[in-house]
Amino acid sequence: MTNLRTLREREIIELILKQLDRMPQMPIPFGDDVSAYPLDNSLMLILKTDMLVDKTDVPPSMSLWQASRKAVVMNISDFAAKGTQPKVMLVSLGLPRRLAKKEIIEIGRGLNAGAREYNAYVIGGDTNEASDLVITISLFGIAKKDSMMLRSGAKPGDIVAVTGSFGKTSAGLKILLDNFEAPKKIRGIFLESVFMPYARLREGLALSQSRAVTAAIDSSDGLAWSLNEIARASKVGFLIDKLPSADGVKKFAKINRIDEFELTLYGGEEYELVLTIKPKLWKKAKEAAEKVGGKLLPIGKVTAERKLLLEIDGKRQVIEPKGWEHFKSITA
Amino acid sequence: MTNLRTLREREIIELILKQLDRMPQMPIPFGDDVSAYPLDNSLMLILKTDMLVDKTDVPPSMSLWQASRKAVVMNISDFAAKGTQPKVMLVSLGLPRRLAKKEIIEIGRGLNAGAREYNAYVIGGDTNEASDLVITISLFGIAKKDSMMLRSGAKPGDIVAVTGSFGKTSAGLKILLDNFEAPKKIRGIFLESVFMPYARLREGLALSQSRAVTAAIDSSDGLAWSLNEIARASKVGFLIDKLPSADGVKKFAKINRIDEFELTLYGGEEYELVLTIKPKLWKKAKEAAEKVGGKLLPIGKVTAERKLLLEIDGKRQVIEPKGWEHFKSITA
Repeated sequence: MTNLRTLREREIIELILKQLDRMPQMPIPFGDDVSAYPLDNSLMLILKTDMLVDKTDVPPSMSLWQASRKAVVMNISDFAAKGTQPKVMLVSLGLPRRLAKKEIIEIGRGLNAGAREYNAYVIGGDTNEASDLVITISLFGIAKKDSMMLRSGAKPGDIVAVTGSFGKTSAGLKILLDNFEAPKKIRGIFLESVFMPYARLREGLALSQSRAVTAAIDSSDGLAWSLNEIARASKVGFLIDKLPSADGVKKFAKINRIDEFELTLYGGEEYELVLTIKPKLWKKAKEAAEKVGGKLLPIGKVTAERKLLLEIDGKRQVIEPKGWEHFKSITA
Repeated sequence: MTNLRTLREREIIELILKQLDRMPQMPIPFGDDVSAYPLDNSLMLILKTDMLVDKTDVPPSMSLWQASRKAVVMNISDFAAKGTQPKVMLVSLGLPRRLAKKEIIEIGRGLNAGAREYNAYVIGGDTNEASDLVITISLFGIAKKDSMMLRSGAKPGDIVAVTGSFGKTSAGLKILLDNFEAPKKIRGIFLESVFMPYARLREGLALSQSRAVTAAIDSSDGLAWSLNEIARASKVGFLIDKLPSADGVKKFAKINRIDEFELTLYGGEEYELVLTIKPKLWKKAKEAAEKVGGKLLPIGKVTAERKLLLEIDGKRQVIEPKGWEHFKSITA
């Protein structure tokens, strides 16, 4: 019998999608970072839900305040990737009986901190009893139909760019979960990236305004997976010629005798944006990101050939369509 | 240490609310059936989220199809109470590893059935691994600001009414959970009310249109609790003089030597609407409900004195502010 041990997250989603009637004229198709409902000819309601479950999404030594804030941030990040300001959110909580009063307070504070950090408000929700701590956030905003950065608009020749470096979080998770070693200073930075992720909302809003972006996604499932998703939705390929590893990732990889590229490409729980940019508007896009205190780092080109290739120092290798999936560990 | 064993659901919600910054000018205050965000001067976005957790919300022998459909219906019911047509929903799933492929399909079909039954669509969601089966539905619609039926508008002299009878579901749950006895025919009806709840959406929409309603709530936490909530929000009391017990409830109570009133008043998981109606517009309201195939049953009056009283055959008793709470069983 086929059960979840053998079904990957993507297959589960496909199975459920097959059972659903399609709303006519969906403004954003299934499978993008957010969903949408048309309000009028020019505006649409933007919707997103994502569940955090402590046993798979909360590493040891992360506080409840941090976990609750993260539950919000991971939803905000999808809005950032679509260039949409989140306005309000609802919170549905599944609470284990073991929780104490002060822990409930901590959860409430973390939720509020996550929302307010991005200028949104919690305006409703419900509580339930559950075996795991479960935090489901539903996020809402309003966007212009013609300014939406979808996954599907990348064109051959476009510049591939990211809003920051990669590998810190996957290294941090390896320290927390597998007892990998790191020098004290790097260790602190890596753990911070796990405990206190930030959504690139300012960058996403500014880049959307620049009109230079042809496709965008957030990197919560890892850089390789994000590239794969844009490639699939846009029917293109990529030639990546710079690997945006964070400071210390190379050293960390060496100390622990693992591959730097693996950490940078196939991580997850990182909340950078991965975008494709019209070459003519590159400067405008870069300035837009920098004006709000962010970065835009070119890492390669979109290709017509539908392959995901990495070429560093003249050596080519294929970027595999794998990344962070919740059920990954039991299917790999 | 105060933990969830000693905190009731309401206290948990109050604790979390205390940690939240308030959005300025919330169109609907915290604590009503739904939340709202203003779209313009006349329209507002209506939002609702509610989580179903199998271990507390799904009785034995309820199928996954039924449980998934119920997760939708319990959210729709809150929209019904506010007279708002639900448009689209997102689904966040927590799935235990034990689930088989055909069970995932059943969940997808149940979700779709629930949505389509009320003319809504599932347009997005996510999946996760969890210990319990967790189904969080987030529901969206649009409503006119001046047509909203809140909990807070009941006035002394208004007629208290319900859209159907009570007690079937609490009797059904006692059959399923506590092995209570019932004649075959009644048993079937009671169990059906547990497995296949219906939201009174048609009635809610029609009653909202009638403009006769001063306050409304759905009865998912039981009739007594619903009355208590309207009384609290509207700062009024009730004198209830008819107890709307469903056919067979009296007999069932007698067979099992329990109190009929208990079953009817203090149940839960029933999805009728409880409303207060302007006396002058009673006929209009009743006709509105009947025109869409529903019922509107008067059960008493709103009083200025802030007490909840039941008076049957000249005997008065106090209706207690208790009802279905998820953590109830561990705090009673």
